[in-house]
Amino acid sequence: MTNLVDLESIPPIDLFGEAVRARRVQGDNLTLAIVELAPDAIVPEHRHPNEQLGMVISGDVTFTLDGETRHLGPGGTWRILSMKPHEVHAGPTGAVVIDVFAPVRDDWDSKPRLEPRAPAWPTGS
Amino acid sequence: MTNLVDLESIPPIDLFGEAVRARRVQGDNLTLAIVELAPDAIVPEHRHPNEQLGMVISGDVTFTLDGETRHLGPGGTWRILSMKPHEVHAGPTGAVVIDVFAPVRDDWDSKPRLEPRAPAWPTGS
Repeated sequence: MTNLVDLESIPPIDLFGEAVRARRVQGDNLTLAIVELAPDAIVPEHRHPNEQLGMVISGDVTFTLDGETRHLGPGGTWRILSMKPHEVHAGPTGAVVIDVFAPVRDDWDSKPRLEPRAPAWPTGS
Repeated sequence: MTNLVDLESIPPIDLFGEAVRARRVQGDNLTLAIVELAPDAIVPEHRHPNEQLGMVISGDVTFTLDGETRHLGPGGTWRILSMKPHEVHAGPTGAVVIDVFAPVRDDWDSKPRLEPRAPAWPTGS
């Protein structure tokens, strides 16, 4: 197995139907996810034992974390310690974000896996 | 302390002099680093116990990992298990990449910390 892989060759996974899709690079102890949020997609408030850090790559989101709400564009980051409630609303053009988790999100193993397809970011790839 | 922070307000750290600089979002169990590589910057072969996953955001790099070499542009990813040797050469216009680590890179605590400044990516922020 190669350990140097282009995003477009990673099959996406449906996380919340078609509105929220992720590609994963899976390590032993952490998951790097590249997540595509459709325009106006909503990730409802949830929490998980996995610690989660992340950043907007393109587009914009409104993030609510443990009682704090902020509008974030490219370069906007979040830091979600274990079991902290969080909720995300994508802006009108959608968003691509990275989310990293420790330990790995092996609960995603049961999510619907799609065929490889062109990612929403980078454009023109 | 806020947990929703824009990249530009995070002070960069010199990792290998001015040629390789990083901003960190630090969790309890993982580090999200946004790393700026100057044009033609070289990160010499090294290894560390921390597992490392990452992706190119802008620009391009030539990555060598455990005997495999690939040229990677935006969306190119790597998966470096604990103690695997790796080396990176930035392209002629430099690169911005994300690197995520578990456990946290607390060995960076002793690196020179700079004043907040505009990041190389996103441009125009």
